[in-house]
Amino acid sequence: MRFFEDIEVGQRREIGSFTFTAEGIKRFAAQFDPQRFHLDEEEGRKSLFGGLAASGWHVGSVCMKLLVADGYRQAREAVARGEEVAVWGPSPGFRELRWIRPVLAGDTITFASEVVALRNSSSRPAWGILEGRFTGTNQKGELVYSVLSTAFVPRRKNGG
Amino acid sequence: MRFFEDIEVGQRREIGSFTFTAEGIKRFAAQFDPQRFHLDEEEGRKSLFGGLAASGWHVGSVCMKLLVADGYRQAREAVARGEEVAVWGPSPGFRELRWIRPVLAGDTITFASEVVALRNSSSRPAWGILEGRFTGTNQKGELVYSVLSTAFVPRRKNGG
Repeated sequence: MRFFEDIEVGQRREIGSFTFTAEGIKRFAAQFDPQRFHLDEEEGRKSLFGGLAASGWHVGSVCMKLLVADGYRQAREAVARGEEVAVWGPSPGFRELRWIRPVLAGDTITFASEVVALRNSSSRPAWGILEGRFTGTNQKGELVYSVLSTAFVPRRKNGG
Repeated sequence: MRFFEDIEVGQRREIGSFTFTAEGIKRFAAQFDPQRFHLDEEEGRKSLFGGLAASGWHVGSVCMKLLVADGYRQAREAVARGEEVAVWGPSPGFRELRWIRPVLAGDTITFASEVVALRNSSSRPAWGILEGRFTGTNQKGELVYSVLSTAFVPRRKNGG
């Protein structure tokens, strides 16, 4: 987790990859999204998705999982370098949550973050506002998932 | 699941209620959002949330779970009345996904849907476009969750 001054528009970072197995897709769906095309291979093949497809909430949750792991990894690395770790504010929500293509059993999705915009916070001068996009891309290079996020990111206390 | 002609702006429907237990919050968080305030009561109390808080993706996934169950319930009821069941198109995504207040262990959230706008689809005349809002409200009547959704809803084939 970096400070606001260290971030530039256009910066991109790979967050991590995840392979959606048939078993994992069905387990999530049984608990949270028990539609037939998320639960059964044959029903998936007959559906618009063309195969056993992961619930969109599963895809979003996996992106979150990798994001948290990546944040902790960055924090550990910063600590190991003797640097101060920036603690970001919680995200109040997301915009434009899009499931662009189905995520099918066996697909490996690589998630990335990209800095879309940076602006000052008039109400909270110790913080900057970062607009970022998280994306998921499958093993064929096709964009499958995209969401926009706004986060409050702390500035360095010394202004530098 | 109703046909486009049967839907009016402003229609509201309770989808169902769900109580978030500490155990369920931790189980989801361990798998998908292992931040400390989602995993441990004491860390939650020390956080901005003021208690063990459910991951936002958990809240969204539970809303989806209740939505699917409600859809199947409506379809069964329509079949029991001898009516034709409308099969809605898949949702391509959501907008304005907002976690407005924390969902804490023990909270019971009642989810509802509300029809925000209806419009014709120029590209797909057999379908209408429904814009809806899903909300979650806690046992104190406080709005905790809101998301906007767009869905393709079939028209009756006979136009009536």
